[in-house]
Amino acid sequence: MSNREKHDRMANAIRFLSMDAVEKANSGHPGLPMGAADIATVLFTRFLKYDPKNPGWADRDRFVLSAGHGSMLLYSLLYLTGYEDITIDEIKNFRQLGSRTAGHPEYGFAGGIETTTGPLGQGLGNSVGMALAERILNARFGDSLVNHYTYVLAGDGCLMEGISQEALSLAGHLKLNKLIVFWDDNNISIDGPVSLADSTDQRARFAASGWNTLACDGHDPDAIAAAIEQAQQSDRPTLIACKTTIGFGAPTKAGTKGVHGSPLGKDEVAATRKALGWTAAPFEVPSDILDAWRLAGLNSAKRRKEWEERLAAADGETRSEFERRMRGDLPVGLDEALLDYKKKLAAEKPKVATRKSSEMALEVINDIVPETIGGSADLTGSNNTKTSQTDPIQAGKYGNRYVHYGIREHGMAAAMNGMTLHGGVIPYGGTFLTFSDYARPSMRLASLMGIRVVFVMTHDSIGLGEDGPTHQPVEHLAALRAIPNHLVFRPADATEAAECWQIALESTSAPSTLALTRQNLPAVRTEFVDENLCRLGAYELATAEGEAEVTIFATGSEVEIALAARKTLQQSGHPTRVVSVPCFELFEQQSAEYKAALIGNAPVKVAIEAGIRQGWDHFIGLDGIFIGMHGFGASAPIEQLYPHFGITAEHTVKAVEEKLKAI
Amino acid sequence: MSNREKHDRMANAIRFLSMDAVEKANSGHPGLPMGAADIATVLFTRFLKYDPKNPGWADRDRFVLSAGHGSMLLYSLLYLTGYEDITIDEIKNFRQLGSRTAGHPEYGFAGGIETTTGPLGQGLGNSVGMALAERILNARFGDSLVNHYTYVLAGDGCLMEGISQEALSLAGHLKLNKLIVFWDDNNISIDGPVSLADSTDQRARFAASGWNTLACDGHDPDAIAAAIEQAQQSDRPTLIACKTTIGFGAPTKAGTKGVHGSPLGKDEVAATRKALGWTAAPFEVPSDILDAWRLAGLNSAKRRKEWEERLAAADGETRSEFERRMRGDLPVGLDEALLDYKKKLAAEKPKVATRKSSEMALEVINDIVPETIGGSADLTGSNNTKTSQTDPIQAGKYGNRYVHYGIREHGMAAAMNGMTLHGGVIPYGGTFLTFSDYARPSMRLASLMGIRVVFVMTHDSIGLGEDGPTHQPVEHLAALRAIPNHLVFRPADATEAAECWQIALESTSAPSTLALTRQNLPAVRTEFVDENLCRLGAYELATAEGEAEVTIFATGSEVEIALAARKTLQQSGHPTRVVSVPCFELFEQQSAEYKAALIGNAPVKVAIEAGIRQGWDHFIGLDGIFIGMHGFGASAPIEQLYPHFGITAEHTVKAVEEKLKAI
Repeated sequence: MSNREKHDRMANAIRFLSMDAVEKANSGHPGLPMGAADIATVLFTRFLKYDPKNPGWADRDRFVLSAGHGSMLLYSLLYLTGYEDITIDEIKNFRQLGSRTAGHPEYGFAGGIETTTGPLGQGLGNSVGMALAERILNARFGDSLVNHYTYVLAGDGCLMEGISQEALSLAGHLKLNKLIVFWDDNNISIDGPVSLADSTDQRARFAASGWNTLACDGHDPDAIAAAIEQAQQSDRPTLIACKTTIGFGAPTKAGTKGVHGSPLGKDEVAATRKALGWTAAPFEVPSDILDAWRLAGLNSAKRRKEWEERLAAADGETRSEFERRMRGDLPVGLDEALLDYKKKLAAEKPKVATRKSSEMALEVINDIVPETIGGSADLTGSNNTKTSQTDPIQAGKYGNRYVHYGIREHGMAAAMNGMTLHGGVIPYGGTFLTFSDYARPSMRLASLMGIRVVFVMTHDSIGLGEDGPTHQPVEHLAALRAIPNHLVFRPADATEAAECWQIALESTSAPSTLALTRQNLPAVRTEFVDENLCRLGAYELATAEGEAEVTIFATGSEVEIALAARKTLQQSGHPTRVVSVPCFELFEQQSAEYKAALIGNAPVKVAIEAGIRQGWDHFIGLDGIFIGMHGFGASAPIEQLYPHFGITAEHTVKAVEEKLKAI
Repeated sequence: MSNREKHDRMANAIRFLSMDAVEKANSGHPGLPMGAADIATVLFTRFLKYDPKNPGWADRDRFVLSAGHGSMLLYSLLYLTGYEDITIDEIKNFRQLGSRTAGHPEYGFAGGIETTTGPLGQGLGNSVGMALAERILNARFGDSLVNHYTYVLAGDGCLMEGISQEALSLAGHLKLNKLIVFWDDNNISIDGPVSLADSTDQRARFAASGWNTLACDGHDPDAIAAAIEQAQQSDRPTLIACKTTIGFGAPTKAGTKGVHGSPLGKDEVAATRKALGWTAAPFEVPSDILDAWRLAGLNSAKRRKEWEERLAAADGETRSEFERRMRGDLPVGLDEALLDYKKKLAAEKPKVATRKSSEMALEVINDIVPETIGGSADLTGSNNTKTSQTDPIQAGKYGNRYVHYGIREHGMAAAMNGMTLHGGVIPYGGTFLTFSDYARPSMRLASLMGIRVVFVMTHDSIGLGEDGPTHQPVEHLAALRAIPNHLVFRPADATEAAECWQIALESTSAPSTLALTRQNLPAVRTEFVDENLCRLGAYELATAEGEAEVTIFATGSEVEIALAARKTLQQSGHPTRVVSVPCFELFEQQSAEYKAALIGNAPVKVAIEAGIRQGWDHFIGLDGIFIGMHGFGASAPIEQLYPHFGITAEHTVKAVEEKLKAI
């Protein structure tokens, strides 16, 4: 058997596993795995550095299937090369409840799935973060420990999504030369030929942002290999435009939209078997071919052993630091430093914006946690994300710790996801809370994957003032709290900000959003408490003097208002307690007893938040008083806006007194 | 005074109005207006077709300030050319409560503000829709009635945002040659030089998507004029890269980030006055200069008179149809046709997915409403947005009625906003509900502007099955309902789908989202009712036989489950009513009496929706039963998913019976 014949049969194994799995599930996307099988075969048998028995090996090459609908390509590769999570039974259970082989690749479901993809362009965005993390760690730990490629398979859809522009322009700017993107250039999207909707010269577009671009026949293994070899030598990231036929091998459907997202059907599958000379039964891979694939996996795994030797030879301190970072453990000393810092805050009671107190906490954190990588989508001075420890990362300056992401909120969020997925770094990045809308698809994926990413969202309400309703978040707290497994923090002062940061850093299975003010806030936590009270999600900040008639729940900048209202109400003889609610999601995780006790039985319940009511009924019930926003904001100085929208202590007191009278 | 001197003084009028207004407000962005004043002066005095006294004139050129933070540029122009809404007092009240001169340009606040901008890239996205609407109407009404340019001023931020790629690649593909974009190439963003974060060759990038690209000195009026003349002759959209100095004229701060978003300060303002030889007091424009500006406005307005004559000369039918469309009125006959259609549905009781019943309603609508322009972000066959009346729009085929937007949800939404803002067309476009996240920034702006755009969002729950959690919306209904002034519809059958479509088309002051199923649903509205019940937002679909012990609220595909649960509960002697809730927002607008009566006093209240609970407490209270999702979905066939997540009639009945026992 010639090399070419062997290649073809190995690639056909992917094709038939994919076709057969889709057929059995009666659902899925056979077109991409069939079209991209040659590219994948060349990559996984000749280039990719991986070890199926140690899928999490730190210095493996990353392979990102950005075109996640082609999930059977990845599952086929994982099965064929010998990843234990993906057995033939898993392939047979493609898209079934409880299987590891979900409709789209789900991070955590199996070794070898580097990220969750499906929403187009996200994988490409992640890959920029992975390639950047690789360079950052390489700068710290050297070639012997960190030196690998990030390969991406992207489709036309990935390249049409706007996030692709943010990702590619950032990668080009940072000269992430170990990033290699295969464009599965099959000219077919769901509606039909790409020419229905696009006429872009993709190579020219990538070149415009400083990429090396190559092209090859995506069904010619030697041409693919030659392109990869060239790409590996590039001083810039590389796009390899691989001309392919979607559904390659299907006699009547190849090259059409009909093969993109539906089973081929019994007859076409049979005809494809005939056309490609594949005689094996469904889900059977001829033993010589399976052996060849397994051998490819074993061969590549040798490079892990060489790497293990290098790691073993490294000095103890380097090794333990490297291993700590890759495990995702925080350095010892952080808790103590934060306690000391909280003591200082209790003594000094600074009146600062929470964006500033976030920066102050970061100054403490970044001193002790060398793996934090800060950044902002061009709002560095507004988001207060840059600290004294973090100089800007630029091409060739990967040892620094701050990313100027540019005006690319979406690309930033996707890159941060990729950095975390790579491991060894903890990314945080900022924009205005209202622009969380731009980043939202990636923020959702961080939640779905359950990974540690910290989104620093400042200018968190009408409190930002004159920029007006386009910039004033109103619905964003509710909208972010709606995302499952997402910790949305709204600290009320510097102490809460420090506590929220601590939780966010410790949260390795959920991302966090810190909603922070532009305006100064007084200290509301005036006594030092050793315990991190924000871990409770909500806690009693001020008790009622007497049996509570009123409970006021508030977050962030409105806690100050709640405390002022309490003061007046108590003076008028209405015992009032104030509950600070820095994080809904954490409160939900508390015991039923704690929750019931905290919500309490005061006849009047009030919530104050400069956002919409949605979600607050859970604390105050249908008959509770909500002091907040009922529509969009307005452009004016903050001093006018809070009274204008009735978010004041006076208004709160009045509403409470009316209610008390009516009871 | 030479022409050049006159130009300079006219441009300086913009500069000083902008500087002085920012100074007085002590807030705002002087850098862009100062830098782009020459471009704007050339455009508004030599090219732009507009009439300050008739800002809404249909065939005016559109000017979109995509870099909305430079709002003082626009306000200065509107004041100087004589728009009545923008007086000098408004300029003095820049960024103050209740002024028309908000921090960012707000659509509806003053004539001449064509769209709300500020979130970067959005104006560019809108402009593609405006330019497309112009071509569509031109194809129908000819050069004599519709023939104008769309000009855009975009900054570096607009071009870095991913949406810009979606916008420019769509515009290039459709060869929208009357779209002319000025890129204010000042090399400064908030963090500092653009080179901190980007190295893109923007001209090459635009050219890669089929644009004509030009460059000029953005402070040389003749060079700017020559570029515009060239652009006007292009058969493709044009990017004019205008090299400018941000904060032009400010002796020490020009060309730095310091002038981007902060007042210059008293001293620098004085120094700028000296440097530019401007002796007028703040907010004063020398009378010769103001006259020159007003004359420019008057001169341009002549073209409106010529156009009025052409309109008057058109045949009566053409004229009345054109005027109807531009007013945004629906054609007579639509209501009747929809009533007939509802009668047919009541008789036939089709069991179809609501995505299909949306298509069926559109077949009726598109026959009668010629101005609807359908489309999809490459999910045409899945979104069912294409009807027999709508052939694809392509370059040169602008008389058609369907846009293949490509895999560009964000660009699609922004373009649809632009089409509506242009007037004369009613755009609707589809994607999967989960990808509303990609389109969300533009959907929010549609709500903020209060404009009629219809977002068709199919595959609206776990009911889509195997594609899994990346594709299954869980939080999206709540997140969209959170946006103020946004009608989120979730119809339960074909009749409700038709009614929701009718409301969406009539809604000229709020956009609509239709959340539609992939899976078939039975008819739940089995009797013909003349009234559009969905207008109530929520209504009793099935009454209790006896005094209600249970009320079940449900939407969309879960209404079927509610009805099945009701049947079982009634058989067990528990009178149960079912309330269909097609639109929260409309329900909120009903009278307090209606709302109280509809929610009712049944001891057990249940809500069923295959999404999260957030928002439902409002109907069922804290002790209500919620049958829905508590986290992300899963990849599996629909038949397994509903039971897996406990969203079934059986589960509902069980929960109700337990609750009834406990009472």
